[in-house]
Amino acid sequence: MAEVKRPYDASGRREQAAARRRAVVVAAQELFARDGFRATTIAAVARTAGVSAESVYKGFGTKAALAKAVFDRVIAGDDEPVPVALRPDAKAIQAEPDIRVKLALYAEAAAARQVRSAGVQILIRDGRHVDESLEEVWQSLLTERLTGMTMLAEHLHSTGRLRADLDVDEVRDLLWTCISVELYELLVLNRGWTVDRYTTWLTRTLVSALCD
Amino acid sequence: MAEVKRPYDASGRREQAAARRRAVVVAAQELFARDGFRATTIAAVARTAGVSAESVYKGFGTKAALAKAVFDRVIAGDDEPVPVALRPDAKAIQAEPDIRVKLALYAEAAAARQVRSAGVQILIRDGRHVDESLEEVWQSLLTERLTGMTMLAEHLHSTGRLRADLDVDEVRDLLWTCISVELYELLVLNRGWTVDRYTTWLTRTLVSALCD
Repeated sequence: MAEVKRPYDASGRREQAAARRRAVVVAAQELFARDGFRATTIAAVARTAGVSAESVYKGFGTKAALAKAVFDRVIAGDDEPVPVALRPDAKAIQAEPDIRVKLALYAEAAAARQVRSAGVQILIRDGRHVDESLEEVWQSLLTERLTGMTMLAEHLHSTGRLRADLDVDEVRDLLWTCISVELYELLVLNRGWTVDRYTTWLTRTLVSALCD
Repeated sequence: MAEVKRPYDASGRREQAAARRRAVVVAAQELFARDGFRATTIAAVARTAGVSAESVYKGFGTKAALAKAVFDRVIAGDDEPVPVALRPDAKAIQAEPDIRVKLALYAEAAAARQVRSAGVQILIRDGRHVDESLEEVWQSLLTERLTGMTMLAEHLHSTGRLRADLDVDEVRDLLWTCISVELYELLVLNRGWTVDRYTTWLTRTLVSALCD
């Protein structure tokens, strides 16, 4: 009877594995922020997380993949395995009938994600000039943003409340550009705007780019 | 009487020096575009320009200073020693009474400068992660843009035709952000927009950001 695996044990092991994985990503996030990408070693991440370097290699493969995992974690804002598009705030945006309120709700959510993710986005974007393994990670960030903005553009376009001359592709490109980390960097990190001011600007910019 | 310097000679020497300097900047522009900043040597620039490496060091000091000279040349669009603000297109913008037409004229001029300068701006911005001598050059590009946009913001604000809630600082920050190389890069270089479409977008964005 010893071979029978009880569901209890399996879920306990899965939870432990998830907790270890989380600890590694949190450690990587801290060390990348403190020391930069290049100076952070997988050994140091493992030590900080209290796991073996071997298990980090097994779980992630490369330091660049760790950077991607840090990005995925900060974009989500928590460790729940629920896609961003299915979260309560995304559902509220989808359900909102007024296009201007809808864009304001979206801008607020996008600004909060920007605050959490700008650091690691810039680390990946700029780090790729020094460590080419980050080039692929940066390209996947851009592609994922485009996929997300394609979905949002289709939803917004289907409401029939956008400027009549805009097709879905143009809406996608405008959204993709407006929520770029570069605009957050220029206004908040460089010009010293507060996040509130950036959010107001983002709302206004989205509304005037997309509505009559 | 041999010591008397005739004006004719002095101006001839100045012209020769200016021509040599121009040849060096043109050579640097070509080699940076073809081989990148790191792989380009001062010796190769000198060889391409047909001058001695010593004279390049004397005239420019560092390779980073050469990159700055390339930027200054492409921003101006020619080799005339006339500041951008005193050029005919800048005067036409200043003289235009209709704020929307004024912004459209400005967007057109800014887009043309972007087409000429985006390559070297990106070379400097990204190259600074590999060669730290470019960091200072990049910062001076940002500062010069801010100085230019402060002047333009003061002019636009003085017309009394902008949104009533905008102060000069906000106008400056909005202009500075709208004409950033990053927005050109996102829309034209990344999303493949034509320069015409970018220019139309820039005009529309400036008008809706600054006017009622």
